[in-house]
Amino acid sequence: MLERIQKANDIKDLKPEELPELAQEIRKFLVKKISKTGGHLASNLGVVELTMAMHLVFDLPKDKIIWDVGHQSYTHKILTGRKDGFDDLRKYGGMSGFPKRKESACDAFDTGHSSTSISAGLGYVCARDLQREDYSVISVIGDGSLTGGMAYEALNNASTLKKNFIIVLNDNHMSISENVGGMSDYLAKLRTADFYTDLKKGVTTVLHNVPVVGDPVIERIRKTKSSLKQLIVPGMFFEDMGITYLGPIQGHNIPTMVRAFKEARKIEGPVLLHVITKKGKGYGPAEEKPEKFHGIGPFRVETGEPENPKKKDTYTDVFCKVMCDEAARNDKLAAITAAMEDGTGLAGFRKKYPDRFFDVGIAEEHAVTFAAGLAAGGIKPVFAVYSSFLQRAYDQMIHDVALQNLPVMFAVDRAGLVGNDGETHQGIFDLSYLSTIPNMVVLSPKHKWELADMIRFGIAYDGPVAIRYPRGSACDACPEFRSPVVYGKSEMLYEEREIAVIFVGHMFGEALEVRKQLKEAGYHCSLVNARFVKPLDTEMLDHLTEQHKLIVTIEENVRSGGFGEHVTEYLMRTGSDARVQILALPDEYIEHGNVEVLRKETGLDVETMTAKIRKLYETL
Amino acid sequence: MLERIQKANDIKDLKPEELPELAQEIRKFLVKKISKTGGHLASNLGVVELTMAMHLVFDLPKDKIIWDVGHQSYTHKILTGRKDGFDDLRKYGGMSGFPKRKESACDAFDTGHSSTSISAGLGYVCARDLQREDYSVISVIGDGSLTGGMAYEALNNASTLKKNFIIVLNDNHMSISENVGGMSDYLAKLRTADFYTDLKKGVTTVLHNVPVVGDPVIERIRKTKSSLKQLIVPGMFFEDMGITYLGPIQGHNIPTMVRAFKEARKIEGPVLLHVITKKGKGYGPAEEKPEKFHGIGPFRVETGEPENPKKKDTYTDVFCKVMCDEAARNDKLAAITAAMEDGTGLAGFRKKYPDRFFDVGIAEEHAVTFAAGLAAGGIKPVFAVYSSFLQRAYDQMIHDVALQNLPVMFAVDRAGLVGNDGETHQGIFDLSYLSTIPNMVVLSPKHKWELADMIRFGIAYDGPVAIRYPRGSACDACPEFRSPVVYGKSEMLYEEREIAVIFVGHMFGEALEVRKQLKEAGYHCSLVNARFVKPLDTEMLDHLTEQHKLIVTIEENVRSGGFGEHVTEYLMRTGSDARVQILALPDEYIEHGNVEVLRKETGLDVETMTAKIRKLYETL
Repeated sequence: MLERIQKANDIKDLKPEELPELAQEIRKFLVKKISKTGGHLASNLGVVELTMAMHLVFDLPKDKIIWDVGHQSYTHKILTGRKDGFDDLRKYGGMSGFPKRKESACDAFDTGHSSTSISAGLGYVCARDLQREDYSVISVIGDGSLTGGMAYEALNNASTLKKNFIIVLNDNHMSISENVGGMSDYLAKLRTADFYTDLKKGVTTVLHNVPVVGDPVIERIRKTKSSLKQLIVPGMFFEDMGITYLGPIQGHNIPTMVRAFKEARKIEGPVLLHVITKKGKGYGPAEEKPEKFHGIGPFRVETGEPENPKKKDTYTDVFCKVMCDEAARNDKLAAITAAMEDGTGLAGFRKKYPDRFFDVGIAEEHAVTFAAGLAAGGIKPVFAVYSSFLQRAYDQMIHDVALQNLPVMFAVDRAGLVGNDGETHQGIFDLSYLSTIPNMVVLSPKHKWELADMIRFGIAYDGPVAIRYPRGSACDACPEFRSPVVYGKSEMLYEEREIAVIFVGHMFGEALEVRKQLKEAGYHCSLVNARFVKPLDTEMLDHLTEQHKLIVTIEENVRSGGFGEHVTEYLMRTGSDARVQILALPDEYIEHGNVEVLRKETGLDVETMTAKIRKLYETL
Repeated sequence: MLERIQKANDIKDLKPEELPELAQEIRKFLVKKISKTGGHLASNLGVVELTMAMHLVFDLPKDKIIWDVGHQSYTHKILTGRKDGFDDLRKYGGMSGFPKRKESACDAFDTGHSSTSISAGLGYVCARDLQREDYSVISVIGDGSLTGGMAYEALNNASTLKKNFIIVLNDNHMSISENVGGMSDYLAKLRTADFYTDLKKGVTTVLHNVPVVGDPVIERIRKTKSSLKQLIVPGMFFEDMGITYLGPIQGHNIPTMVRAFKEARKIEGPVLLHVITKKGKGYGPAEEKPEKFHGIGPFRVETGEPENPKKKDTYTDVFCKVMCDEAARNDKLAAITAAMEDGTGLAGFRKKYPDRFFDVGIAEEHAVTFAAGLAAGGIKPVFAVYSSFLQRAYDQMIHDVALQNLPVMFAVDRAGLVGNDGETHQGIFDLSYLSTIPNMVVLSPKHKWELADMIRFGIAYDGPVAIRYPRGSACDACPEFRSPVVYGKSEMLYEEREIAVIFVGHMFGEALEVRKQLKEAGYHCSLVNARFVKPLDTEMLDHLTEQHKLIVTIEENVRSGGFGEHVTEYLMRTGSDARVQILALPDEYIEHGNVEVLRKETGLDVETMTAKIRKLYETL
């Protein structure tokens, strides 16, 4: 059956009775392929029928489907002729795990971060109407993504504009972790309520509660209202915003969904289609543990067990352990996540200290200002967040935390190159944007022991502080390099002359190797661990320039506004004669692929760096 | 009466019958003082009684009041002993126009940007409960601020946490411009609905619509629901989120509000108090035109007319004019504002091209991704926004616009020092954060004619582009300097040797004067208008370094990640012998005050800059 799907709209040639079989084949295909390459599994298994139904009703690429986050677009990729791409899924030069306009005309908008699809869809809608074009726009958003504020901003705006626009709420009662918040509870009610029964019960209760004359106004309103709450009207929340609500609809029944989409297409103004799906549907292990199969590496299909079980601690593991240890000693310590309890390693913290653990939902902006409030109230909050998602809260860091110099700690995980998730997830701007924020202290550890020391430093520090560390296994080389972390001080590892290499954080391994190769080639080379990207250790820089002609900086961050630029600026300001060579990522988006490959492509591999340093040094 | 208020809680010593007179005195005081110093008037006149009621019920500084945005905190300042501060309101060294923890223990949280108060308040609430302390937390948020997504994120989180927390919705049906969006319509319904009448009508309609057996499910749900929409339950939106709703309450009646606050304090869990106020209340001109009296300069009390009527065009005026001209020629051109129709100058555009004008509410994140959607759909959107508010959408610029290289233009108004609004409003980070974004082109004009040329360049440019320009009168000196704006090219104004001064945008006047003083002191000095902060004009830099020993950069932006650092980095990379001197703002928050004074304090005045240049040049 799958062989008959070679391009967009081919699905329309199938007979209705063939569709369930196609769904089965797609599921089998996805499990098989992802078990080899790794990727997002549970979210994709959940939307097989939903995607098929959309492809049956709508006409691609004329109609525009916008996938929120985009980690559920695999079936869409299959149905638009990209089946063969799954062999190289998320590999360098291969197919992306997210929608990419460059990849197909059927991908209407690139995504990766949460809660953007309604905004982007509404933009398409207005562009269509201004140009008197005729097509449908469908934004598919999960219930988790709906906790993000910008989704609400967009709903609010959609309701004012009153234009034809289909929003599909893909409700699986999950973000990546279990979903939280009032909106989530509300959706749960919609899902479970037997509408007609509740309606009748509600009306009866209302009639029972005709207000007694003479009560104080407030009391009266409250009493009436609390009984009215029984009267659950599906979608009132959305209808109140001026958005027509259809649902809830069973999201694994193709004919029902086809009918609903045809219905939605006819409705004037914005319409929200509430579709109930099951994350991981059709693959036992993923249905049982959808979080585990959200984003996953290669695994054994029979058992669901990882093909390459984790051998070493990750930085995330270290973070979790130290947080728990410190929380035992310090009852003011609290932890915050934005729907990334597992990813950030805070699940362990939650179990031990549920009162001091806050999952605020996919809501980075709120998370940061909430942390500021906690700090103003005397608590020491640690917000653990991925580097690329923290971009969402740049203003809140400036305006709510650093302006008041509040002691909020940011545990910036997935910093630097993250690999297979690609452009939207690379954490390559943080050293730059964090450096622009007054009062913010920015650190990065070279290995697991230093991360532990830095977390303790950060918890004790009385001001805003960010510690950035990468995805994956923590470096456990050179435990002997472990001098105490002192505010604003870098760490000299090898002191010689001629060339000084200063590296930031996890570029430690590469920097060690660069030094080794330089030594072998006959150069003298000092090695310094920057530790603090901000403030700069100017004393160390002054010292280095006395006996080194060349200062090399190595960082896994874009060049613009990064560590190297700050070092250069300082040496220029002080009139030093030393030359600076910045080894950083280019000021570009960096696609998906293995981190080693990406480093090579961007010139941050040992050979390229060593060659560059030698070449420059010879000209001095 | 006002004389008896010397410190927090003094208001409690007044007799109930004296309170209306105090309100009158406060209004008179505010109008008189602000007519001299300028400041926020309409928002403050609207909350006189609301503030008094809170001060009567709560105990400051033990209880925490958090003012969203904070431009309505003047009465709070009076009631907490800061009456005398109004003579120096918003002047350098004087009292801030916003809450400042440094100023008073009664200011629980610094604000300035919109929609942060519920997040910050919730932080205090959790900190209080973790430490088993006992105080009330009250966040006061306007209906305009409620359109900001992070307010919704915070409400969502508050509903989960179920902690005692009072949210005051100060509903004046306004943000700065008239309010927009579904939430606004919803609040309007609450305000006007005769609750009991509608309730009865609603119930009747419901009973009429008992579903007919056999209808298709969707049709049935829709029919029932649309009639149920008549059944307007006040606050159902909030109650659905698990937040107790009280209201609507008349916001100029002190006894009613005092009762309501006492009631709210007793309720378990989060409670939202819906208070109806009138912006500008009690001062005729401000009631009539609240937008005009939102933030205002000195004015005549009798007429409301400005004391110093505007003589010259502002950059905002130029922007508006060119946008309208271009829209006449180009029917793909659209404009977006985030509730700043007047401030950004787009009111004129809206009148002429209502279909192509979008006010999305206080929702910068959505605005940017919405613009990306418009651009993907074939429209050329221009988002006009203040520099410090655009910080909110840093991730959306990276993730939704620049990643897809979409032709969205950002008209970044209020860039550089803005003066009296102070720390939260200074637009001093934009050159840094915009520079970190791949594909983003960043320009800044030296005078009004160049702004016009740059806007036309930006509209024609097929990619993301930001033009930053300051608040206030547009420079109209030197119309003869008007060479065409060419991608990536700077503009040589005077070519000599020895010292080259490169300035960014509106530092033109200062740079001209610096050059003049250097010339008078016997130096040779070239003068270059950077025009493009990104990409750098490296050809010009190569040329300059041939005949200049010192390259001076002048910009009104923080040093970290700014123009000067990029120039330095380039010269270092190319091994130039030229020395760079960066003249920029320090990496600090800069308080309120007159821009001239702030420049002097930060070393960006002509005398200090000239002296610094001379001093450095003599050492070369």
